[in-house]
Amino acid sequence: MREEFRADLHLVSQLLVDMAEAVRAAMRNATRALLTADRDAAEAVIARDAEIDSLYRQVEERVCDLLARQAPVASDLRAMITALHVAADVERMGDLADHVAKTALRRHPSPAVPAELRGVFKEMAAVADRIAEKIASVLSEPDVDLAAELDRDDDAMDDLHRDLFKVLLDDDWPYGAETAIDGALLGRFYERYADHAVNAGRQVIYLITGEPVVD
Amino acid sequence: MREEFRADLHLVSQLLVDMAEAVRAAMRNATRALLTADRDAAEAVIARDAEIDSLYRQVEERVCDLLARQAPVASDLRAMITALHVAADVERMGDLADHVAKTALRRHPSPAVPAELRGVFKEMAAVADRIAEKIASVLSEPDVDLAAELDRDDDAMDDLHRDLFKVLLDDDWPYGAETAIDGALLGRFYERYADHAVNAGRQVIYLITGEPVVD
Repeated sequence: MREEFRADLHLVSQLLVDMAEAVRAAMRNATRALLTADRDAAEAVIARDAEIDSLYRQVEERVCDLLARQAPVASDLRAMITALHVAADVERMGDLADHVAKTALRRHPSPAVPAELRGVFKEMAAVADRIAEKIASVLSEPDVDLAAELDRDDDAMDDLHRDLFKVLLDDDWPYGAETAIDGALLGRFYERYADHAVNAGRQVIYLITGEPVVD
Repeated sequence: MREEFRADLHLVSQLLVDMAEAVRAAMRNATRALLTADRDAAEAVIARDAEIDSLYRQVEERVCDLLARQAPVASDLRAMITALHVAADVERMGDLADHVAKTALRRHPSPAVPAELRGVFKEMAAVADRIAEKIASVLSEPDVDLAAELDRDDDAMDDLHRDLFKVLLDDDWPYGAETAIDGALLGRFYERYADHAVNAGRQVIYLITGEPVVD
C-alpha cells in the first residue's frame, strides 16, 4: 500500500513537472511573440493552452483516484491537497502566458510594446523564466533553499513592475491611453505569473517542512 | 457514517455561503469606496479580507479532516474536491474586491473614477452584486436554473467591459494615461470577479448534475 502510494505520488509529481515545463515554454513563446511581433509564436501559445488544461485535469483525476483507492491520511493526504493547489497555480500561469500571447496577436503586425518598454519587459520575462525553471526543478526534486529563492525573484519582479509604471506614468509618456493600458495589463500578467509561481513554491516548502510560509 | 458525512458536508456548505456573503459585502463596500471616495469603506474591505482568507482555510481544514476521517468515494469525494474549487474561486473574488478598495484608497481623496466612467462602473458593480447574491443562494440551496443564469450575467459583464474600453480608447479621452490605466485595471477586477463567480457556479452545476459545463 505504502509503496503503491509512493508510485502514485511520483506520477502526480511528474505531471506537475510537465505542467511547469509547459507553462515555462508558453511564457517564453509569448514573450517572443510580444517583443518580435511573431504571430506563429503567439498562435502556438494559444493552441497549447488546452494541453496545459488537460494536464491539470489529469492531476485532478489522479489525485481523486488516489484519494478514493488509498484513503491517505496525515502527511500523505496533505501531499495530495498540496498537489491540487500547485496544479491550480501552474495552470493559472499558463493562462497568463496565453493573455500575453493574445495581447501580442491583437496588435499584430504592430508591436504591442513600444521601444521605451522593451527593456523592462525583457527583464520581466527573464525573471519569469528563471522562476518557472525553479518551479519545475523544485517539483522534480524538492529543495527548500531553491524554493526560498523564489521570494527574492518575486521581489525582483515587483521592482520591475514599479519601474514599468514609472515609465507609463511619466509626464513625457509619448503614446496614448491604449498603449499605456496594454503596458499596464501586460505588466500585471508577468507579475501575476511570478506570484502564482511563488505560491506554488511555498506549497512545496510547506510539503517538505510542514511549516506554512507566512507572507 | 453516511449521516455524519451529510452533517460535515453541510458545515462545509455553510462556510462557503459565509464566504460568498462576505465577498459580496466586500465588493459592495469597495464599489462605494470607489464611487464616493469613501475612505472608511475602503479600509473596511482591506481589513476584512483576512476574515475571508480565514474562512477559506477553515473550508480546507474541514475538507481535509473529512477526507481523513471518512475516506469518501465517488460522488461524496467529488463534492469535497468541488468544495475546495468553489472556496478557491470565492476567496479570489475577495482579493479582487480588495484590489478595487486599494485602488480607491490610492487616489483618495480624489475619486479614482472620472465622471465619464461612473455610469459603466455602477453597472458593472450591479452585475457583480447580482452574481455574488446568486452564488450565495446556489450554495445554500443548489439550483441548476439559477446557476445557469450566471452565464448570462457574465455576458452582461463582458458587454460592460467592452463598453468601458470604448470610452477609455476614444480619441476624445480627456484624461491622461494614469486614469486610463486605473480604469482598465478596475474593469479587469470587476470582470475577473464575475468570472470566478461563474466558475464557482459551474462547479455547483457539476456537483448537481454530474455533467461538466463546457464553455
